[in-house]
Parts: sequence; C-alpha cells; structure tokens
Amino acid sequence: MKTAIFPGSFDPITKGHESIVKRAAPLFDKIIVAIGDNSSKNRLFDLEKRIEWIKKTFKNEPNIEVMTYKGLTVDFCKEQKANYILRGLRSAIDFEYEQPIAQMNKNLNHNVESFFLITDPEYSAISSTIVKEIHKHGGNISPFIPEGINLDK
Amino acid sequence: MKTAIFPGSFDPITKGHESIVKRAAPLFDKIIVAIGDNSSKNRLFDLEKRIEWIKKTFKNEPNIEVMTYKGLTVDFCKEQKANYILRGLRSAIDFEYEQPIAQMNKNLNHNVESFFLITDPEYSAISSTIVKEIHKHGGNISPFIPEGINLDK
Amino acid sequence: MKTAIFPGSFDPITKGHESIVKRAAPLFDKIIVAIGDNSSKNRLFDLEKRIEWIKKTFKNEPNIEVMTYKGLTVDFCKEQKANYILRGLRSAIDFEYEQPIAQMNKNLNHNVESFFLITDPEYSAISSTIVKEIHKHGGNISPFIPEGINLDK
Amino acid sequence: MKTAIFPGSFDPITKGHESIVKRAAPLFDKIIVAIGDNSSKNRLFDLEKRIEWIKKTFKNEPNIEVMTYKGLTVDFCKEQKANYILRGLRSAIDFEYEQPIAQMNKNLNHNVESFFLITDPEYSAISSTIVKEIHKHGGNISPFIPEGINLDK
Amino acid sequence: MKTAIFPGSFDPITKGHESIVKRAAPLFDKIIVAIGDNSSKNRLFDLEKRIEWIKKTFKNEPNIEVMTYKGLTVDFCKEQKANYILRGLRSAIDFEYEQPIAQMNKNLNHNVESFFLITDPEYSAISSTIVKEIHKHGGNISPFIPEGINLDK
Amino acid sequence: MKTAIFPGSFDPITKGHESIVKRAAPLFDKIIVAIGDNSSKNRLFDLEKRIEWIKKTFKNEPNIEVMTYKGLTVDFCKEQKANYILRGLRSAIDFEYEQPIAQMNKNLNHNVESFFLITDPEYSAISSTIVKEIHKHGGNISPFIPEGINLDK
Repeated sequence: MKTAIFPGSFDPITKGHESIVKRAAPLFDKIIVAIGDNSSKNRLFDLEKRIEWIKKTFKNEPNIEVMTYKGLTVDFCKEQKANYILRGLRSAIDFEYEQPIAQMNKNLNHNVESFFLITDPEYSAISSTIVKEIHKHGGNISPFIPEGINLDK
Repeated sequence: MKTAIFPGSFDPITKGHESIVKRAAPLFDKIIVAIGDNSSKNRLFDLEKRIEWIKKTFKNEPNIEVMTYKGLTVDFCKEQKANYILRGLRSAIDFEYEQPIAQMNKNLNHNVESFFLITDPEYSAISSTIVKEIHKHGGNISPFIPEGINLDK
Repeated sequence: MKTAIFPGSFDPITKGHESIVKRAAPLFDKIIVAIGDNSSKNRLFDLEKRIEWIKKTFKNEPNIEVMTYKGLTVDFCKEQKANYILRGLRSAIDFEYEQPIAQMNKNLNHNVESFFLITDPEYSAISSTIVKEIHKHGGNISPFIPEGINLDK
Repeated sequence: MKTAIFPGSFDPITKGHESIVKRAAPLFDKIIVAIGDNSSKNRLFDLEKRIEWIKKTFKNEPNIEVMTYKGLTVDFCKEQKANYILRGLRSAIDFEYEQPIAQMNKNLNHNVESFFLITDPEYSAISSTIVKEIHKHGGNISPFIPEGINLDK
Repeated sequence: MKTAIFPGSFDPITKGHESIVKRAAPLFDKIIVAIGDNSSKNRLFDLEKRIEWIKKTFKNEPNIEVMTYKGLTVDFCKEQKANYILRGLRSAIDFEYEQPIAQMNKNLNHNVESFFLITDPEYSAISSTIVKEIHKHGGNISPFIPEGINLDK
Repeated sequence: MKTAIFPGSFDPITKGHESIVKRAAPLFDKIIVAIGDNSSKNRLFDLEKRIEWIKKTFKNEPNIEVMTYKGLTVDFCKEQKANYILRGLRSAIDFEYEQPIAQMNKNLNHNVESFFLITDPEYSAISSTIVKEIHKHGGNISPFIPEGINLDK
C-alpha cells in the first residue's frame, strides 16, 4: 500500500492544493491531506472549518483522506505507514524553502521520500497567505479556492 | 501498471542519476531510463557506451530498463504507456529549467505528470557537464559516477 | 490621463523609492505614491511623518502626489482611475515576491497592469527594513534616504 | 510622443510576446517590435518570415510597428527617438538575465528606461526555444504562437 | 593581525557554523564568533548557553574566540580592529539575503570586507531554525549540532 | 605564505575583476590571476593581449601576479602551493553556477578552499560577455574595463 502525506496548514485550502492532490492521486493508493496542528502558530480559520473544507473538496475522491497531526511530519508518516510526502512547487523560492526540509526529513527518517509536482501555471500565483489578505480586505476569493467552499460560514 | 520515464542524455550517467532512479523505484512498477538520441547535439560518449553503463548501474534492479528514443519525450511516454516523467532537482536553477518543460509537456499530453525528487546533498554538485570537464582534464571522476563504471573503456 | 499607483508602506521612504518614481515620472501623467494604511502591521514611523517625508521628497515634481489607502491596492486603483501599478525590482527575490502579487492583482482587476523598473545598482542594497535596522543601532542612514529628510524629527 | 522598443529575435514570435506587447500598448504612443538582426547568431526562421508573422499578429493594432536593427539596442532607441525599452519577465531567471542588460543600457544611454511586465501565468512556460524544439520534433505548436500563424509556410 | 568576525545568533550553533569557522580558520589570525545580542528578538536558548556551546565547539582551536555584541556589526568590527566579516552561503536564497547586508556594511565602513564560504553539501540543509523546530517536536537533533553539545542541559 | 588563485578567462578583464582582486589583496600574501588556457573554447582576444591587460591593471600591486594554466584549477593550485581560490559573486545566478564548482573542487582537493566576495553594486552588471557584445557593436566600453586599457590595440 503506497500512502502519501500531503502536509500543510490549509488556512484555507486553495485551488492550488486541490490541483496537486488530484494530479498525484492516480500514483498513490492513498493520500492523506494532513493538517499540522501547531498550537503556537496563529491561524485565521478554525481547525474544524479547515477540515470541513478539505473533506468537501475531495468528497468524490475515495482514496483521499483528511487528518490532523502534531509533532514532526516524518513521525506522522511512520504512524500512518506512509513512505511518501507530496508537495507542490510554484516557484524557485518554493524550491529553496522545500529543499532543506526534504533533505532533513530524509535524514530523520530514511524510509520517507518527498515527491514534488510543479504547480500548473494557472494556480502558481495562489497561496493561502495571498487568499487571506484578499479576503480580509473584502476582495472576491472564489476564483482561488475550491468550488463550493464558502469562507464566511 | 505505473511506468515512469527518466529522460536525459546520460553523457555519462552519474551517481546523481543513479540515486534519483533508485529512490523512485519503489513507487513505480517500471522506470525506463530513456536516452534522448538527438543527433544534432554533440555528445562526448557513444550511445552504445552510455547504454552499457546505465545497464550496468541498474543490473540488480529488475524494474529498471534502458531505452533510447527520438522526438518528443511525451510522444515516447505515449508509446510506452508511461503516465509519469521522473526528474531530479539539484538547485533553484534546475527548478527554473524544469518548470517550463514540465508545464509544456503537460500541455502537449495531459496524461503525463512529471514528478520530481530533490537530489540528496552529497550528489547536488554533480552534473554530467562537470564530470566531463574533470575527465577531460585528467581528474579522477570515480567518486561521481556509479561504481564499476570505467569511462575509458 | 495615465495614472500610476506606487504602493508601499514607506517606513521610511528611501533613495531607492525616490529613484524609481522619478525615473517613471516621464511616462505617466500622474504618479500617486500610495501608503497602504494597514492598521494590523506595526510600523516604526507615524503615518504623518511618512506622508511628510514623501511630500518633501517630491515637492518639485508637480505630477507626483501622496495619498493613503486602506483595503486592496486594485480597489484603490479603481477609485483613483489608475490603470497602472508601478513597482521596483532590486533582485530575483523581489521578483519572486512581486510575481504572484502582480498576477493576482491582474486577476482581481483586469484593467490594472503592473509595470516594473529594475533598481539602479547604487540603490539595489537599500530597503526600508535595513535602513530601520541601521537607524535603530545608531548608524548613519543619511546616504540611504532622500536628501533633506531627517528621521529624528 | 512616447515610443517603446520591444527588442528580440522573435524566432518565432510567441503568444507570450504578443501578450506583453498588447498589454503595454495603451501606455505608449507607439511600440516598435524590433528584430535584432545579428548575423552571427543562427536563427531557425528567415528574417522575412519573422517580420511577416509579427505584422500579421499586430495587424489590428495601429500603434505597433515592426522594424529590424543592427548594432546596440540603445543606439536603435536613439535613432527612433524611443525613450523606453519594453521587456517581459517570466521567471526569476529571466530577471537575472535582464537585470545587467537593463543596467548596462541605462549606463550607455541615460535617456532610455527599461520597463518590465510580468508574463501572464498561462504564457510563462512559453519560449521561442521550447517552441522550436517542439516544432522540430513534430509536436503541435499552435497553442503557443499567435493565432493565424503557420510556421510551415 | 587579520581578524574576522563571524556574526550570528547561534540559537543554537550548528554543524554548519562549526564547519564554516574551521574551514576559514587557517586564513585568519583570529576569528571572533560574535553573538549579536539583540534584546528585541526572541531567542529559544539563553545567551549563556549559546556562549557555552560555542566555546565547547572550538575549545581546541586557539585562534577562535567567542564574544557578544550589541549594535551594528560594522561598529563591533571597528572596536575589535577586525577588517573581515565571515559568512557561509548555503543556497541562492542565502545569497539574496547576504548581498544587500554585505553591500550596506561596506558602505557604512569601507575598511570591512565580507568573505563568504559555500557550505559543504552535507551541511547545506541545516539551519538553526530547522534544528529548533525538530528539537521542539522531540526529534533527534544530534546529527545537526556539534559533537558533545546537549541542548537539554 | 597564503596564496590565492583568481581563475578566469579574462576575455577581457573588467572593472569587476579588478575590484574583486584589489579588495581581496590585503588578506592574502599573493594572488595569482590565472588565465585558464582552454584551447577548445573560442576567445575574442589573444592570450597575449589578455595577459598584458591584466599586468597593466595590477602593475602597482606587488603581490598580484598573472599566470596561465591548462587543466584543472585545483591541480594548478597544488602546483602553485595555493590553498585558496578567490571568486566574485554578482548575483544569485552566479552563486548557482559557482556552488557546484566550489564543492567539486573541494572534493578533488581537500586542501583548497574557495572564498567569495560579493561584487560592489556599481560593477554588478558588468561581465566580459556583455562588454564584448557592446564592443562588437561599436559601443563605448571604457567605463567597464580597467583604466588605461585599450581593447583596440
């Protein structure tokens, strides 16, 4: 059973996240969208909301699950018998951020490999941070988040 | 059957290539190391030599094959019923080179997804180009190419 | 009437900002130096001071104005009938930061185009952040801010 | 009269070039698409073909012209009384390539400013080089070049 | 006497820091590992601990000292009659961060030159930030910090 | 005796090269400006001219010499009992180019360390390649090459 973890804070989930997971889905038996529940960081949206939106996004995808975890991603991988971490790369700066994390994760747990997809161009400008900023200032964020998600309720 | 193409010129194969393929091997049913036989580009080593060295490198890996191809990588993918392209990323500049290629390949053939592994640190400085340069000037390239390969015969 | 918005926090204005606006001035009928008044972010200098310094910097430039705004930059553009956003690029990392913002702004308001100038070399190391850091530690910041500006009063 | 030069080899013109010029057109009185006729570089397509395709692309844009030039771009600017150079930026690596050129051009002719637009995401993977590569191998390049252009005749 | 300052927060010291200082040691008469004691920034580890760990790391290196300083690094250089600043570069993003700092330091004090070493590959993924994150979540950080250092006491 | 090699093709030497060597000169007992005489690469200027111009540039610097070498830079270092390689970094892309070379050189000869200076901003746009391009098209390159050098004789 080939299981991948797709870790993040998903504050909120974007069309970029949705696209990466759906593109990778055929390659794995299971993908766990894993919300890192790091209490020390401020999130805009409640954990419950974030879980709900991810579930809604993938409700028609039987092999995609949502979970939360605390602690190191590689420890959560071991717990879930997942040998793969899945991540998207939008730009060179994303690469620079991901490279040391992937190398440290490999160092901490040699059984876990990180695989990357390059974001499709139409989603490469989307980040949770920019979406939140637009939302906070009253802009229309519906083109940037999965269909059917309403951040206001 | 999940088949990945690992395309390149492998002039010559390096420990970096070897590492990427071996790390990815558990995720795929078959990986085809595919030498792009582009007659217009000058290669230092004969195609025959390059094939032989790759075969030797993976002789104990039953699900890794070597093939050559002409034309577009995505057309070779279709021919081989391969839905995945595998590539390594050593640095931000590699990312910048690979990003448009991956996006164009997706555009040309929507059934093909490119997956990337980030090179392990000990191999991140190795490239066929640098290996050739060192070899040409009489330096010892054995730390940079797979064990058992001798570029001089 | 071709109006450009030059948005920023200008905390404080630097010679880099001054240079970008003056270089772009001949191309536009009006440039509005627009201070984003985002109450949630901590600024070192009062809004009043920041406005005063910008006014002083461009006091001899009849087509350069200073304004403050809240909310999205693209909404302020619409309000001011400005079809252009002007930004400076000092480095690849600036580009990586500006690219998704420009693309999102275009997406939010198709009538607004962002134009970029590359910072002149002598100003490429200057940022408000570094200027503040030097000022806080008692260093001489006068080479980095417009002539006639005194941050201490 | 505000005239911009959009210099390049346009071997061939792509949808990326077309998009940059059309987005910039409202800001300038005239944009000259200027083919650098550097005899020492090998081009795939004849100069005549390249001119014809650009003319066809902008046939409905009265303020966009096509010209060829030899020598330095800044000298051609002076000859055409153009105070602006227009360029597109697709990625950080484009920025790194354009930065020294823009700074040197400014140094050689202080009256010329280079303005940059960031490529729209849907065109950011397109380059003449990749288009040529795909064309050479028999791939379908029509999604990447302006409508109505046929590279084979 | 050729003295270099190796400034940082060392929160905590890593094998990456250790390697840079030891590689540079033969070139200088003295290297001062200088902890910037900036009270406004939150550090995870006490200043005393950080000093102790650095001393332990270099206890066999007679020409390497540990000091703390407040204020600008270039002012501390002057105070210590040090004409050199030493820094490590792990990646392009490190370069982008260090470039304006080095240029500003040169501007503030023309007698100080910053010299850079590129981090050895095996340490290029290590940063104090990642080490702290792993430590906080109960991971084993001993492969990433100098031998003999125990962060828990 | 602390000797550094400053390797390059110097086709031609620029003010950027001159600046790096002069800034580094106080740290070393001797700096050898070393022209890699790689017969397979096309150079615009004769080796004799290039040597002459470098000699002229540093004629008042007693500890700076000019030499030519064939083969690997690290082998030339050994021959000259030089434990240091000196290089300048203008940009992130320079870093990306230099990083694997420095790491490979260290791997080939553990006694050689590469030290880097970041180019002063006023020289960061200058490269031999751009200088040649401007020269070829009849532009004035005197601001970019050392004083007293005349490329035409």
